[in-house]
Amino acid sequence: MGPRHGTDMSESAFIAQLRAIATHPAARGLADDCAVLDVGGDTLVLTHDTLVEAVHFLSTDPPASVAWKLIAVNLSDLAAKGATPMGALVSYCLQGDPTWDAEFAAGLTHVLETFGVGLWGGDTVKQSPSVLGCRMFGATLIGKGGALVPSRSGAREGDELFVTGTVGDARIGLLHARQTPSSMSPFVEAYRRPQPQLAAGQALASSVTAMMDVSDGLLIDALRMAAASGVAAMIDLDSIPLSAIADGIGYGNDRIARINAATAGDDYQLLFTSALPLPPLPCPVTRIGQMVHGQGLRLHDRAGDVPLPASLGWEH
Amino acid sequence: MGPRHGTDMSESAFIAQLRAIATHPAARGLADDCAVLDVGGDTLVLTHDTLVEAVHFLSTDPPASVAWKLIAVNLSDLAAKGATPMGALVSYCLQGDPTWDAEFAAGLTHVLETFGVGLWGGDTVKQSPSVLGCRMFGATLIGKGGALVPSRSGAREGDELFVTGTVGDARIGLLHARQTPSSMSPFVEAYRRPQPQLAAGQALASSVTAMMDVSDGLLIDALRMAAASGVAAMIDLDSIPLSAIADGIGYGNDRIARINAATAGDDYQLLFTSALPLPPLPCPVTRIGQMVHGQGLRLHDRAGDVPLPASLGWEH
Repeated sequence: MGPRHGTDMSESAFIAQLRAIATHPAARGLADDCAVLDVGGDTLVLTHDTLVEAVHFLSTDPPASVAWKLIAVNLSDLAAKGATPMGALVSYCLQGDPTWDAEFAAGLTHVLETFGVGLWGGDTVKQSPSVLGCRMFGATLIGKGGALVPSRSGAREGDELFVTGTVGDARIGLLHARQTPSSMSPFVEAYRRPQPQLAAGQALASSVTAMMDVSDGLLIDALRMAAASGVAAMIDLDSIPLSAIADGIGYGNDRIARINAATAGDDYQLLFTSALPLPPLPCPVTRIGQMVHGQGLRLHDRAGDVPLPASLGWEH
Repeated sequence: MGPRHGTDMSESAFIAQLRAIATHPAARGLADDCAVLDVGGDTLVLTHDTLVEAVHFLSTDPPASVAWKLIAVNLSDLAAKGATPMGALVSYCLQGDPTWDAEFAAGLTHVLETFGVGLWGGDTVKQSPSVLGCRMFGATLIGKGGALVPSRSGAREGDELFVTGTVGDARIGLLHARQTPSSMSPFVEAYRRPQPQLAAGQALASSVTAMMDVSDGLLIDALRMAAASGVAAMIDLDSIPLSAIADGIGYGNDRIARINAATAGDDYQLLFTSALPLPPLPCPVTRIGQMVHGQGLRLHDRAGDVPLPASLGWEH
């Protein structure tokens, strides 16, 4: 419900119309990816993401990987809050194809077991013949927050900007999977089976001023964080971390490759700001820039200022 | 995820496959309509229902009433737990039609305000052109449970069986709305804008042995409660409460009319069992039968035993 899924006017208008009833503190003004609820001295973090065929996954993706992605993208939102996942409610529409349904259920079992998440409920619906073949799946994930639950709006002037892991592999994977659906390359795996950065999020939660996951593209998500925080983001393109395999096949090391990586979606890394020394982390982390006075996004590399690309990421 | 939406083999197989990972007490074995989570001394009740066009609502239903129904059917699940609603996460797919979207948002605002429910978040997604026109909406509702949170499996031999309000109006409304979508009759309103029995559920929660909402038909839901509880349900058809308006237009007063009312869905009344005197209730309540030794469902009326109809309700 937050701005994560784009700046399309119709969506903005839709959310603006609803903001008047989002006054409860748990809603965080609909400006975040999760609801944060204080209950009986504990903090619950709740999030819901829906995946739509041909928007969030490919029609040719295996059902088990669609189930993985459905849970993983929600876990990534919990990771950005430093939350520990507890349970899931899953909305599944039966496909009228027992094989597809069984493979999805097996994939759902696998991903929930992998991350220690309980299946608490949800809804299984049939489709009408009039919409048969519509693949749209939802999940609500419930997690437990720590003492501090970061938002995307807390970045301050002078904070350094970091990203975990590497970005851009999923973009290459999407291109591969479109061309060769049977491909099992590490890039295709990165696209189909993102790894939510739960341990990093938990380790970081009390050291960051703002945190969010990179789902729609590093640049667009950094711009959203800057806008929510009332500052500008200044990013050094040369510092954007590409994976060794992407570097190895010649996708890295030039301005266009790094812009491509930084404007693609589905990375599910954590983007965060901090003014403190970072705690020990279970994954690589890279300083990619700084928050500064002003608004918007500024790019540079070793050759100087870099004009903003026409698209900063996915808006869906 | 519970048995509420039918006994279709494919759905049963799907849920059976998932039951192995539903071991957390909050899941209640996927045999209930809500998850029930003890957290910090409080009890949270969580439920998710998805509405599908041409299955749960008509293509001609006004967008505002689709929004009403989306929230109301989830509130009805909370009502059956005696819970007080707190907040909602809503999954909405933009229709590519600003008027439809705006009317849905207005309807969502109205229903959430009517029941004092906060909008806490959710997800707004665009559709791909390949599935454009697919109307499938989800909502997760979060409520606070009382000291006792009834399940559907607690009915015992000898308990009396009750239903709140009246049943069957929504069935007539569905027939009317199919024929004349512009109709605004009370029957059509009953179909499009069900009234969750929240106050009754809260009043009843500590006096019942089992409780659930009547969403798919009084008979099928009574059979589900009996099966979950390991007893048989014996129902007196003559006692099934029809509304005065339904009686007034000649739908009542005969066996077929009462069977029609008791096998139609969308009533959203509360069905419950109790062996205690009932507390004061904010709505009419009718004793319709008793739980007895055995299994299954038995019907009778003043003329004697009544054979079970071929369909006991909706299975979707």
